[in-house]
Amino acid sequence: MENMFWIGILGALIALCFAYAQSRKVMSYSEGTPPMQKIAEAIRQGANAFLKRQYTSVLKFFIAMVIILALLAIAGLVSKFVPFAFLTGGCFSALAGFIGMKIATSANARTANAASESLNKGLRVAFSSGAVMGFTVVGLGLFDISLWFHLLKYVFRADSFTIGTTMVMFGMGASAMALFARVGGGIFTKAADVGADLVGKVEAGIPEDDHRNPAVIADNVGDNVGDVAGMGADLYESYVGAILATLALSTTAGYGWAGMFLPLAIAVVGVVSSVIGTFFIRTKEDADQKALLKTLRTGTYIAAILAAVIAAPLTYFIMSGKMGIYVAILCGLAAGCAIGYFTEYFTSETYKPTKKLADASETGPATVIIGGISLGLVSTSAPILIVSAAVLISFFAAGGAASFSQGLYGIAIAAVGMLSTLGITLATDAYGPVADNAGGIAQMADLDQKVRERTDALDSLGNTTAATGKGFAIGSAALTALALLVSYVDIASVKMTEAGKAVDLSLVNPTVLIGLFIGVMLVFVFSALTMSSVQSAAQSIVVEVRRQFREIAGIMEGKADPDYAACVDLCTRGALKEMVLPASLAVIVPIVAGLILGANGVVGLLCGTTVAGFAMAVFMSNSGGAWDNAKKFIESGYLNGKGSDEHKAAVIGDTIGDPFKDTSGPSLNILIKLVSTVSIVFASLIVKFSIL
Amino acid sequence: MENMFWIGILGALIALCFAYAQSRKVMSYSEGTPPMQKIAEAIRQGANAFLKRQYTSVLKFFIAMVIILALLAIAGLVSKFVPFAFLTGGCFSALAGFIGMKIATSANARTANAASESLNKGLRVAFSSGAVMGFTVVGLGLFDISLWFHLLKYVFRADSFTIGTTMVMFGMGASAMALFARVGGGIFTKAADVGADLVGKVEAGIPEDDHRNPAVIADNVGDNVGDVAGMGADLYESYVGAILATLALSTTAGYGWAGMFLPLAIAVVGVVSSVIGTFFIRTKEDADQKALLKTLRTGTYIAAILAAVIAAPLTYFIMSGKMGIYVAILCGLAAGCAIGYFTEYFTSETYKPTKKLADASETGPATVIIGGISLGLVSTSAPILIVSAAVLISFFAAGGAASFSQGLYGIAIAAVGMLSTLGITLATDAYGPVADNAGGIAQMADLDQKVRERTDALDSLGNTTAATGKGFAIGSAALTALALLVSYVDIASVKMTEAGKAVDLSLVNPTVLIGLFIGVMLVFVFSALTMSSVQSAAQSIVVEVRRQFREIAGIMEGKADPDYAACVDLCTRGALKEMVLPASLAVIVPIVAGLILGANGVVGLLCGTTVAGFAMAVFMSNSGGAWDNAKKFIESGYLNGKGSDEHKAAVIGDTIGDPFKDTSGPSLNILIKLVSTVSIVFASLIVKFSIL
Repeated sequence: MENMFWIGILGALIALCFAYAQSRKVMSYSEGTPPMQKIAEAIRQGANAFLKRQYTSVLKFFIAMVIILALLAIAGLVSKFVPFAFLTGGCFSALAGFIGMKIATSANARTANAASESLNKGLRVAFSSGAVMGFTVVGLGLFDISLWFHLLKYVFRADSFTIGTTMVMFGMGASAMALFARVGGGIFTKAADVGADLVGKVEAGIPEDDHRNPAVIADNVGDNVGDVAGMGADLYESYVGAILATLALSTTAGYGWAGMFLPLAIAVVGVVSSVIGTFFIRTKEDADQKALLKTLRTGTYIAAILAAVIAAPLTYFIMSGKMGIYVAILCGLAAGCAIGYFTEYFTSETYKPTKKLADASETGPATVIIGGISLGLVSTSAPILIVSAAVLISFFAAGGAASFSQGLYGIAIAAVGMLSTLGITLATDAYGPVADNAGGIAQMADLDQKVRERTDALDSLGNTTAATGKGFAIGSAALTALALLVSYVDIASVKMTEAGKAVDLSLVNPTVLIGLFIGVMLVFVFSALTMSSVQSAAQSIVVEVRRQFREIAGIMEGKADPDYAACVDLCTRGALKEMVLPASLAVIVPIVAGLILGANGVVGLLCGTTVAGFAMAVFMSNSGGAWDNAKKFIESGYLNGKGSDEHKAAVIGDTIGDPFKDTSGPSLNILIKLVSTVSIVFASLIVKFSIL
Repeated sequence: MENMFWIGILGALIALCFAYAQSRKVMSYSEGTPPMQKIAEAIRQGANAFLKRQYTSVLKFFIAMVIILALLAIAGLVSKFVPFAFLTGGCFSALAGFIGMKIATSANARTANAASESLNKGLRVAFSSGAVMGFTVVGLGLFDISLWFHLLKYVFRADSFTIGTTMVMFGMGASAMALFARVGGGIFTKAADVGADLVGKVEAGIPEDDHRNPAVIADNVGDNVGDVAGMGADLYESYVGAILATLALSTTAGYGWAGMFLPLAIAVVGVVSSVIGTFFIRTKEDADQKALLKTLRTGTYIAAILAAVIAAPLTYFIMSGKMGIYVAILCGLAAGCAIGYFTEYFTSETYKPTKKLADASETGPATVIIGGISLGLVSTSAPILIVSAAVLISFFAAGGAASFSQGLYGIAIAAVGMLSTLGITLATDAYGPVADNAGGIAQMADLDQKVRERTDALDSLGNTTAATGKGFAIGSAALTALALLVSYVDIASVKMTEAGKAVDLSLVNPTVLIGLFIGVMLVFVFSALTMSSVQSAAQSIVVEVRRQFREIAGIMEGKADPDYAACVDLCTRGALKEMVLPASLAVIVPIVAGLILGANGVVGLLCGTTVAGFAMAVFMSNSGGAWDNAKKFIESGYLNGKGSDEHKAAVIGDTIGDPFKDTSGPSLNILIKLVSTVSIVFASLIVKFSIL
């Protein structure tokens, strides 16, 4: 088994080549009429402005972190590879985000134009651009892992235990980058949204998505920033984190190289299955939204089933017949699908909860908000029970009753199973914002009614896939965080025993208990900060848009172009400034708490953050999603339709839901993984210098 | 030490006699003019209707529980005393609620009338009625504990360990009663409030608090139900729970009778200190709100300082010089005061957070709501850090580093310390709703402007003390829940070892981890259910009020009295019906989860519920309090004052805050204690029959 790891590189190449092929396909389409090209170009420019500024800011943070990590490496507190691995993780994550956003901003006008030929063509362009993102994330992730594995094994001749426990520290770079992408992106997109609406629609009285509004491009850029780049970085981190955690747990579980090879093999199987799945995504010309959804689902399910089928003999072969591990993999795959289903149930207007929420608008905004909060809180039960069942079954199926370490390995491999078909899952998610943008462009460029109907169908479908994608992202973040948690325990225990400190993770140990309290507190405070950041950042956009309206002559008559890049830059700066505090908290709290409470307390903190963060993320995402869809449902003619009191009440719910579902909720996904990776990297420091 | 426990009876008698004296004092005042008497009588009738109906419903539940407990006792799974103790706990808790509400509904008109003579007299009547409640709770609690202690020790000749572990099961009766009082009361008060406003103010166009509105009395009754009886039952449970948990931990900690006597002695010291403290509460005639607040604070602080001073030699004497335990007691006392301060900081309009929240109303309801949610989420940090510090210091000061059990004893005794001066703390809290009602009566009975100004000053002060009271209730619930948690671990460990099952409370044990997930989920779902209950119950009030306006001839002309009792009864029935589901969850979830996951999993569940429930309760109470005060701040003339767009936005925030702060938030206090007491009672059953 030991010499089979080149298969990881092969998988990476397959994924990247497929992504390249898909991007060629997208680029072969025309961007349509000159007005469409102009709009698309403006969005692209905005995206570039954003990326430039964001990466500059992040670079400073990365330089500072590399210096800190280098000092720790010199002091012997982390492996000497960590500073470099931190960089590659961050760079690959950033690269995945960059490529995903590049293609998304190239595909929006092309999707609109292709839809003018046929619905099927529109779907294929949008989906192909999503596939570029999905397979780039998977390919770069596999490549990063394989690269380091070969370097450590063949150049530095490390044994399996050292490789596992060293490489699990490599997740922090991707985590940190993901935090910037998700939190920054989340604040950006909602600040632009709110800012554009407040001045453009309310004050200046120009319609939504009007190209004279300097913030309109920032708004469109925001969709890509938050939903494409942010989601990509988030799942890149989950994907890499789950595989690395499994690598780290293999040796303790007694599986050595075989147990390290399995997650890689499963990942490669997932890549191949995902590629095959994409070929099943096509639709007839007269397809309605249900048929569109069905074809996307068909592709995803075929990939999942294929992966499940191939994984069986593979696991049998690699793990010498230990089929309990296969059960764990299946658990992960099934849990991913089930969470996706329940997210849709709670947030789609085709089901009872969101319909009931729409009804609550009849008695005003207060009842809509109470109803939405209740809905979100109740909706946490489904994913929590699903993840609980998956963890429990994986643990025991993998042999947890006889060997504790083998049970923990089962939990980690379940996370890998869930994420194995990420290529196609992420493709259907990243398809959403492209279709969304295409719809906007079709409207702005005043395309034919028939084309708009088609892009509307694509867009509406995108909302559904975006919601299930969010559920999947949260579920996989939780499982990955648990896998990282158990590897932290594995690593910290060794170090504590070496240092002569007692490992006591019992819940009645006060340091563990206090850690739990602090972990939950971190989730609450982090959510609050990301939410209020949106409000502050939006305020600066309002000022800038007002300034441009006042100072740029001819802007309202369409004679002069507004300075889109200025708004984008301001959003970026606002977002990056506002995210400093929450991001710092995510890094500083586990270290400071660890230095006071010790490594036992850190385990408490990680559990508190993971469990409360998971529940809070589901709550916020689902409340926000349901408010959004309840509003859309009313706009589609339910109750008294657009402009009615009911609609106004629903709009207030939606406005509150925006930072819930697009800023705080998704940012919590990163938080729960970042605290784990930070804790892993700083484990030696904490064990050595902690007070308790 | 062994024969000193009669002091508990003495303390109970002092408290009850003082309560009686205070009630005589209240009753010696006149109820004022005939209109005032009529209004007061209507509120009293309503309260009686509520109590009658509530106790009938609760009785059924109690009979069912006693049968179940009797069966468990016959099967040898609980002590044979448990069914009886369950009854006495429930009865004393109900009695405390009954007396508190009786006096509160007798004192409201008297307060208004006394205020017409002088501010000082008004303050003294209102405060005296609060003191009746405070000292009744303390007296009955001490009496119940002492009674059982003497019965077990002298009649059944049990040893100290048996007494401790048996008596800790007695908390469940009080917990169950408290759940009905708090959740039922919370739903009742907000359903009445919303129902009265929607039909009376909005549809019929009659002013707020108009006596023609059939629901107006229910609204006034609701204040007493939620804030007097509910708060009283809640704190009765915390008080008894903290003392019982300490009794249970004493023998394991090696302190035997001495360690069991200490909490009782501290409680009695607290009673005496509280009585003395009440004599310092008086004010000059020209006092403003600050001076009023100062005099209440002075009384509370003097009691706390007095208790702290007397406790020092007492602890030295009882615990043979182990002054670390004294430090733990001090920690509890200090934590209680600190949490009260921070609650005020986050919810009073005299501080920055609520002022900033009021500013957010300038940009509409959405920003007010986002701002309020952020504020509440951030505000969790202070009490969590305070409780964490108190737990940590208590544990180590009490000798946790050398003996784990002694450290746990320290945590429990800290809870006793915090609650020792409950007599006066609860007096200042229960004062609030009386002053509130007095203000209402002064307005309804059209009293002199000068009188109204005085009752307004008293009322406004009541809002502040109610907010700090809520903070104190949450903080003490958290500490008590932790004390109950560690006694559960103590008890379950013994039973598991007997049954040959492994005690493994490590956070990486999947059953513990899943328990944690389920515990957090319980908090989220429970919050959602209590919140949506208010909405459903309010709907039935709307229907009834409309019916009365339609069917009772002459009601609008003031010629016929509306059927107040019907509305009150409907509120009660609605509240009791709506609370079945959340209440059942609180009892069923720990038992079912325990039967699947085993006792280890239950510990995870208890921790998850306690930690998340604490954070959620603080969040909801503080968000709600801040919205309420931001609205009042605007009404007092800030921004554009009453009727402005800012005011309308703030009113929406306040409406959402109502179920937050008066239903879900306070109910969580009970939840976190009830799951512990339920788990303790069913420990044997779970250990014997659990799957894992």
